[in-house]
Amino acid sequence: MPRPTRQSPERGNARIRLLEAARDLVRAQGFAATTVDDLCRAAGVTKGAFFHHFESKDALGVAAAEFWAETTTRFFEAAPYHDSPDALQRVLDYVAFRKAIIVGEPAEFTCLAGTLAQEVHASAPAIRDACGRSLFGHTATLEADIDTARRERGITGDWTAASLARHTQAVLQGGFVLAKAGNDSGLARESLDHLDRYIRHLFHIAQDAPT
Amino acid sequence: MPRPTRQSPERGNARIRLLEAARDLVRAQGFAATTVDDLCRAAGVTKGAFFHHFESKDALGVAAAEFWAETTTRFFEAAPYHDSPDALQRVLDYVAFRKAIIVGEPAEFTCLAGTLAQEVHASAPAIRDACGRSLFGHTATLEADIDTARRERGITGDWTAASLARHTQAVLQGGFVLAKAGNDSGLARESLDHLDRYIRHLFHIAQDAPT
Repeated sequence: MPRPTRQSPERGNARIRLLEAARDLVRAQGFAATTVDDLCRAAGVTKGAFFHHFESKDALGVAAAEFWAETTTRFFEAAPYHDSPDALQRVLDYVAFRKAIIVGEPAEFTCLAGTLAQEVHASAPAIRDACGRSLFGHTATLEADIDTARRERGITGDWTAASLARHTQAVLQGGFVLAKAGNDSGLARESLDHLDRYIRHLFHIAQDAPT
Repeated sequence: MPRPTRQSPERGNARIRLLEAARDLVRAQGFAATTVDDLCRAAGVTKGAFFHHFESKDALGVAAAEFWAETTTRFFEAAPYHDSPDALQRVLDYVAFRKAIIVGEPAEFTCLAGTLAQEVHASAPAIRDACGRSLFGHTATLEADIDTARRERGITGDWTAASLARHTQAVLQGGFVLAKAGNDSGLARESLDHLDRYIRHLFHIAQDAPT
């Protein structure tokens, strides 16, 4: 999942400001390295305000993953990749859109839910599960277009729409890891080129397919 | 990258014991959450011994990524996927081998370098770069087989061996993130099935290719 780095208009809301601070700090430095003091400082709120809204740092972690799911859902619903009348084109436009928004620093374009899950998978199951709902809730939004494209084009390969939708997310998440390890956002875009080529092969529209 | 969870035979070596403790604790709970005390306790060494071997926790982080690169290099060199006389088969056997070793808990089968890079990409460039050397050093070992397979089979697609090698790593790393977020190792294996199918399409041996 991507982006949303813009700050909410309702800057008066301490809870939202803390969730935005968590989104940005955790993507930059991870969850364990981000203290409650860091979050309060970034959000411009007191520690009292923090514990008024969240009973613990872990509760803030769960809420941050849920806030990520809500904001990215709105972001993707408004994105232009839904516009084509052709279902396969919408799937390819999704991949192109994901590639187009990989710009700037990793802390800006990478996924809060993936980063959080990577870190807390064994130590904070409630946060991990909130991350899972965000990631897999997003992949589920791709399934209808993939299924329609399969039907429209008579594709009968031994793979499902749900599985290909999850694979798009795996390629994105892995591309983010490579971009971070190599300090080069081009590494994430490169893997989306492979994903685009894979989908074209699955639907038999690849240019280097046998003739 | 994978596995090595077995403990070194030379349990008398405090440095090795600390590196093994880092490998296991960081994969389970992350780098920031792992304290020097945690590492000393798991390795059965004193804090004095820790700072005799490593001048800081960050220095341990760099050494842990380098230890990971060394041990996984030996592990993959000894793996059976090199045995086929056919280069494409060796590439497919690599993917099958990576799938076969995804068993147990994420802390056992996931990649120290990917996890570390995900967490410290912006806060500890020296650790990040050691992770990058580990990840991309491993992908480079796949390039010769992919190149040979392209030549042997007359493949002229608009992709390079280096790029496909990196993509295999992206799919692995992303599969690990999904396995953690979904608390299901099958999610990592599922993405490797897509990778296997993609490579077969690239080399025109996919069973659901057009006839």
